[in-house]
Amino acid sequence: MDDLRGILRDLPGPDDEAARRTVAREPQLTKPEGSLGRLEELSKWLASWQGRHPPCADLIAAHVFAGNHGVAARGVSAFPAEVTRQMVANFLAGGAAINQLCKTFDVALTVDEMDLDRPTADFTLGPAMSEAEFVHAFAFGMEAIDREADLLCLGEMGIANTTSAAAVCLALFGGDAGYWTGPGTGVTGAALANKTAVVADGMATNRAAMTDALEVLRCLGGRELAAMAGAVLAGRLRGIPVMLDGFVCCAAAAPLQAFQPGALDHCRVAHVSAEPAHRHLVEHLGMRAFFDLGMRLGEASGAVLAVGLARAAVNCHAGMATFHQAMVSNRTDF
Amino acid sequence: MDDLRGILRDLPGPDDEAARRTVAREPQLTKPEGSLGRLEELSKWLASWQGRHPPCADLIAAHVFAGNHGVAARGVSAFPAEVTRQMVANFLAGGAAINQLCKTFDVALTVDEMDLDRPTADFTLGPAMSEAEFVHAFAFGMEAIDREADLLCLGEMGIANTTSAAAVCLALFGGDAGYWTGPGTGVTGAALANKTAVVADGMATNRAAMTDALEVLRCLGGRELAAMAGAVLAGRLRGIPVMLDGFVCCAAAAPLQAFQPGALDHCRVAHVSAEPAHRHLVEHLGMRAFFDLGMRLGEASGAVLAVGLARAAVNCHAGMATFHQAMVSNRTDF
Repeated sequence: MDDLRGILRDLPGPDDEAARRTVAREPQLTKPEGSLGRLEELSKWLASWQGRHPPCADLIAAHVFAGNHGVAARGVSAFPAEVTRQMVANFLAGGAAINQLCKTFDVALTVDEMDLDRPTADFTLGPAMSEAEFVHAFAFGMEAIDREADLLCLGEMGIANTTSAAAVCLALFGGDAGYWTGPGTGVTGAALANKTAVVADGMATNRAAMTDALEVLRCLGGRELAAMAGAVLAGRLRGIPVMLDGFVCCAAAAPLQAFQPGALDHCRVAHVSAEPAHRHLVEHLGMRAFFDLGMRLGEASGAVLAVGLARAAVNCHAGMATFHQAMVSNRTDF
Repeated sequence: MDDLRGILRDLPGPDDEAARRTVAREPQLTKPEGSLGRLEELSKWLASWQGRHPPCADLIAAHVFAGNHGVAARGVSAFPAEVTRQMVANFLAGGAAINQLCKTFDVALTVDEMDLDRPTADFTLGPAMSEAEFVHAFAFGMEAIDREADLLCLGEMGIANTTSAAAVCLALFGGDAGYWTGPGTGVTGAALANKTAVVADGMATNRAAMTDALEVLRCLGGRELAAMAGAVLAGRLRGIPVMLDGFVCCAAAAPLQAFQPGALDHCRVAHVSAEPAHRHLVEHLGMRAFFDLGMRLGEASGAVLAVGLARAAVNCHAGMATFHQAMVSNRTDF
């Protein structure tokens, strides 16, 4: 894990020249200045982290990582643990929401299942992963980002993984377990109270071992969370901006930021999900989502939905005529 | 105008059977119930007003209507009035934001200019349009919707038309002129104070003539506003749901709802623009936007951006596997 710590302490920064050229072009385009709002921010962000002007949004990759969690045995989900594997089969057969979303937005989907028959350890009894398991999963996520892409959308599948995400957030940001624990796929009442207690137990059990934010992810995360964190880091190192998805995806990325401020500057969060803790987490990360549509599915569904915005932003920025080209009068200055 | 009043009093309703079938299918799909949030609402709305299940989002039409306003002579815009015509030329040449957005989302764009060399009358001196001019523009908008489409996106171009929109809202909903008047393309300070006074003047001048909401649109609107209202009505009559855009577009549609409650049930508003009055108007209409991205361009730009959501919703609804088909275990009931 020390190698990883070293990489995180020495991350590449944005391309300021690409950003400057993006900002310089905007006021020349045939629209009132700033009138495309956050689409203009998106263009600048893509240029900064792709390191080129104009930015591109042609090749979009979505990666969904799937993992199983020992803590699922504690009755924290509305669905049985075998659903993780069943849903991976559904992804591969093209039957899930993410397949339709990737089809809609012409996004290349890759699904990686991670030792589904070997769940992580129940984190109420000890760390979810050994150091070797964690590093293996993290490196797997890094290596999965092996293709050229203009934007990477991340997501996950894993029964019980909102429990894991809640515990990671509790350990990183404090507060009480109830603040970070929500219905996930649909637990309520006594089952939600049990889930909250499991999150608090995980924190108590692993407190001494969690000496930094990466240890938090090892002790309370899961393989798919570690892989998403690795994929986020790979995006940074390879000049691929990253679109984060919902609560679990953001909780997987959060330890990088907690370990090294600025480590998520090449990431945006697509949406705020209906899982209440996601809103808290997005605020803690200092991010601002593009959508707030009451979605709570995971699978990179929100991230892929934001691809339309990224393409719109880039096409407007690169393809619109300037005032000069179109012979349109610019504003009268008062 | 009495023919029009008669049509508005006898509008067709939604297809409840198509809505019922949409709602019945959702819980069978391989996702936690309700987890696609507002995308599920979108599917139901499209099915209801297209009158079929499953709903479609293949053929999308965007219509942009352009008009000139006599009130532009009162110095209410940051851009000179000739920009309306210049921007129409830019639309036709493919250089504007809406061209790029339509390209991004595979939307068929139609631009209709409406007597640009004959601005409406300055509404601070009397009604913007005679009854004949208003009915002509309204009918033009209705007839423009002459193609099959699964969804209609509406927008506009017209220097000074946020002044017109503010006056329409003031007359329909009350309050003071400042509540409805904003920077538009970018007026501030003394110019904004002047714009606000012009809006208040328009209201005062036409008060006696505005005996119903359609008269409001005649006295304070413009040709492109009347045409958008006509297009909204045509959508209702032809089974085409309508995606509204920003402040001017919504202000054009608002008189229909003020005249006949429910007249906009087949419409959704795509986004809340950065023009402050748009937020107020969306609230007054009892609507909820999908985006809040600080855009303030008009041209149907926000409406076309929402096409990605509509396609995503429909593809998920129609194309996802059911739990039974995918052999995925459904939730455990506690």
